[in-house]
Amino acid sequence: MKVGKAGEFGLIARITARLPLGPAALLGPGDDAALVAVPDNRVVASTDVLVEGRHFRRDWSTGEDVGHRAAAANLADIAAMGAVPTALLVALCAPPDLDVRWAEELAEGLAEEAGLVGASVVGGDISSSPTLTIAVTALGDLDGRAPVRRSGARPGDVVAVAGRLGYAAAGYTILCRGFRSPKILVESYRRPQVPYHAGPEAAALGATSMIDVSDGLLADLAHIAEASGVAVDLRKDAFPVPVQMRDAAAALGVDPYTWLLAGGDDHALAATFPPEARIGADWLVVGEVQEGVPGVTVDGRPYGDGATGWDHFRS
Amino acid sequence: MKVGKAGEFGLIARITARLPLGPAALLGPGDDAALVAVPDNRVVASTDVLVEGRHFRRDWSTGEDVGHRAAAANLADIAAMGAVPTALLVALCAPPDLDVRWAEELAEGLAEEAGLVGASVVGGDISSSPTLTIAVTALGDLDGRAPVRRSGARPGDVVAVAGRLGYAAAGYTILCRGFRSPKILVESYRRPQVPYHAGPEAAALGATSMIDVSDGLLADLAHIAEASGVAVDLRKDAFPVPVQMRDAAAALGVDPYTWLLAGGDDHALAATFPPEARIGADWLVVGEVQEGVPGVTVDGRPYGDGATGWDHFRS
Repeated sequence: MKVGKAGEFGLIARITARLPLGPAALLGPGDDAALVAVPDNRVVASTDVLVEGRHFRRDWSTGEDVGHRAAAANLADIAAMGAVPTALLVALCAPPDLDVRWAEELAEGLAEEAGLVGASVVGGDISSSPTLTIAVTALGDLDGRAPVRRSGARPGDVVAVAGRLGYAAAGYTILCRGFRSPKILVESYRRPQVPYHAGPEAAALGATSMIDVSDGLLADLAHIAEASGVAVDLRKDAFPVPVQMRDAAAALGVDPYTWLLAGGDDHALAATFPPEARIGADWLVVGEVQEGVPGVTVDGRPYGDGATGWDHFRS
Repeated sequence: MKVGKAGEFGLIARITARLPLGPAALLGPGDDAALVAVPDNRVVASTDVLVEGRHFRRDWSTGEDVGHRAAAANLADIAAMGAVPTALLVALCAPPDLDVRWAEELAEGLAEEAGLVGASVVGGDISSSPTLTIAVTALGDLDGRAPVRRSGARPGDVVAVAGRLGYAAAGYTILCRGFRSPKILVESYRRPQVPYHAGPEAAALGATSMIDVSDGLLADLAHIAEASGVAVDLRKDAFPVPVQMRDAAAALGVDPYTWLLAGGDDHALAATFPPEARIGADWLVVGEVQEGVPGVTVDGRPYGDGATGWDHFRS
């Protein structure tokens, strides 16, 4: 059945039936607004939007995949502040000929990904639109911790990353070239594996700055460098190249470090820590913070052609 | 300049420059997430999306108008729970050829409308899209009050409304017919006048249920009737017909009660109160709650052809 036939309220009923409520959801869908517990007295909130053709393709990803990715992109922003996500709100704009099953799978993917951290979808909105669009807002709780911002990095801090780097970009390149494997890379593009717990852990360990790697490590660390007024230098040999990535890069004629250093969408976490911090095993030290002109270098030099970012209007 | 030329980060800078932060905004744009004060330990949250061609037209409304409407639709949902809005997050999907000035005006409209209640835009996201789309999430605080839901109406309660009814629908009809006046009706469509303060006031007065009138009074009261398991009967003569509306209706050959009872988008508030409640001057009593099959009648009878709702996929 198409969503245009199910109608707005029929579609809402089918979607909400797939959304179990988590412990923070005091009131879920069904009223003009949801109500979410905020024990900390301060709520962390972030919004990210996914547009078909821009952020996903229906021939590459199922509705469930897109649900996972839409949730992950937002939950990672909450973790990158040092907070634990509690709730999602979802605005779905769908063409009337969208299959209802796709929307149901989207809801299932959103709920599953949120469930990984004990969060749930508490509300949303649905509209018809020529362009399939999913806008998600995530809420989270700091549990008394100070928020970890982009602006706190200090010369002498170490730079560390948690989670996968380059997997999603490699998967994207593989799909663009018409292939479907290695599975681990393609699946990482479809459903990022986000180290959510590493965010609050970093905050507890005294992280001085943090960001989620959505645009690429160099671009995202450049945001930290600029906000903190520091230089960041990475050591290229600190980044292990996974064997599947090395092989795929060789087969496709790509430098794997382009994926590792400039690829986005894995939603790894990048943070800076005081040199004395006892960083856990989830974090890999990859560089250091220095005095200097704000920017990011690799082994002391600018990396590649400098085009390391991702502009949602230009790329 | 077009937004495609300004680029994602250029556009974000131009927009955030137009967004003063309110008292609840502990951290605004610039990090992975915002931080908002929630003195109550529970945050009220709601999402509403506006799609060009579906919810607004650029030849009928300026960017500032659309900003006001997008904010109002969301802030009204917070007020309808009995809460005071504190913050907005905004996802803007824009075609690359959108004029930067339009996006700036949108931000100004959002900020102005939020400022009416002391709220502010604390974060958001921007993406390119073929379809101009604005998804807004509003947060709010209950300040110790119980949330007012749709499900609490009881037989014997009075039904009351606060704010304008039918103005936006009349304005919409006028614009559809190619006219631009009466000004008060057209302006009500462009920028709804929402009685925000009446929401928390109703909660304090003991309202048993509440909803914001976005789909039309009959349709929205039907949500209350269904959620509460009650019948709602309205008195047609309780609704004054403003003189400009009466004249416009006569000129256009429209029954003005179609606008008053079935027109949406004014974001008036409709609530039920115990008969002994001392309802203030902001509220106009228009009917009563009865035992019976859930539904809404006018003077004891079904109104019109029964097609009183608004389905965002069908209408």
